[in-house]
Amino acid sequence: MQGTTQSTAPSDAYPPTDRTVPTRSADRASYDRELVHAILDEAYVCHLGFVRDGTPVVLPTLFGRVGETLYVHGSTGSRPLRMTGEADPGLPVCLTVTHVDALVLARSAFHHSINYRSVVVHGIAYDVTDPEEKRTALDALVDHVVAGRSRDSRPANKKELAATAVIRIDLAEVSAKLRTGGVNDEPEDLALPHWAGLVPLRKGYATPVGDPGLAPGTELPGYLSDL
Amino acid sequence: MQGTTQSTAPSDAYPPTDRTVPTRSADRASYDRELVHAILDEAYVCHLGFVRDGTPVVLPTLFGRVGETLYVHGSTGSRPLRMTGEADPGLPVCLTVTHVDALVLARSAFHHSINYRSVVVHGIAYDVTDPEEKRTALDALVDHVVAGRSRDSRPANKKELAATAVIRIDLAEVSAKLRTGGVNDEPEDLALPHWAGLVPLRKGYATPVGDPGLAPGTELPGYLSDL
Repeated sequence: MQGTTQSTAPSDAYPPTDRTVPTRSADRASYDRELVHAILDEAYVCHLGFVRDGTPVVLPTLFGRVGETLYVHGSTGSRPLRMTGEADPGLPVCLTVTHVDALVLARSAFHHSINYRSVVVHGIAYDVTDPEEKRTALDALVDHVVAGRSRDSRPANKKELAATAVIRIDLAEVSAKLRTGGVNDEPEDLALPHWAGLVPLRKGYATPVGDPGLAPGTELPGYLSDL
Repeated sequence: MQGTTQSTAPSDAYPPTDRTVPTRSADRASYDRELVHAILDEAYVCHLGFVRDGTPVVLPTLFGRVGETLYVHGSTGSRPLRMTGEADPGLPVCLTVTHVDALVLARSAFHHSINYRSVVVHGIAYDVTDPEEKRTALDALVDHVVAGRSRDSRPANKKELAATAVIRIDLAEVSAKLRTGGVNDEPEDLALPHWAGLVPLRKGYATPVGDPGLAPGTELPGYLSDL
């Protein structure tokens, strides 16, 4: 209902825009906030795109999420971070995350595919200058690698903070895209003798390998043995 | 030696350019052709960046490699493929592939990282119009999903070929970037009580799931049971 206090709370979905409505396979698109968050949170790296001298650049980078904001960090000398600091009001970026879940082998070459979940974020990257927001962002970046880890490590000191640039990208123009399910062969191909089906990809963790110089008595923390 | 016929053969490394020499961590960069090929071939999707209306777009997509050429395909209606067909002489793109190999947990938040291998390709995407090159490219795309699979599926028919656009990007301006090895903590942090080390990521395949409508007697092919 218009005018109620509820109207300021984020809705359950991102509003679609010209850039986030796909030209094809629109049935695979989703704007669901929870789904977008889950896809983002499961990824270790994103691919950050920006324009330099008129041509596109796509770089893999770590990121963190705090609510509806993504943070990317790096050396103050790195290109996208320096360019963000120099851009006014900010640097147009596209940040994309993809999980490959299964190989989809069809009887026809044409219908080969993969099952995947991706999120594409369009937005403007802004330099984070507020020291408190910068600390929150850096904690989120570490906790994105392993949940709870920021509390079990030495926080950044002044020198490290000064050497680190952080940029923020708000989750506003966002879409997810997914392919799930089985093989979509043409009816006339079903009798062909080629094997068809899914090859699911398995992801997991191998046994953690402690640094040789660990302080005596340092044990593997629970948040790692539970992985 | 200049002037010999050998000089036309590709060298073992891509020549570095302004765009492929990183502004930092230059020791992590490599231009080795074999290494670049191996990183590309191990990836199921790449992230393709291009510029649309002045802003960056990054989309995940399947790809294939034939020697020093990458191929990306899609519906003739998809944006980057349509834009390539309309661009003269072609569409500037950046194609990036990343593997995450391990989480690197340091005693200090600052030195948290990941071990990764990435390849960044800068180039111009050209529409593939030659029918023979298009077929070769489509085979490479299927064989990139599972080696040898193109021979064990129905090839694209005329209608499917007409509905599929293929673009080519030559491997010329290319770099790999890698982080390997252990934790790089500051000497004064080594006695801290925080666990530090690597958490290697494990990747593999689950048991293939056959399509319910497989023709009677269709067995799982060797190239899948060997995965």
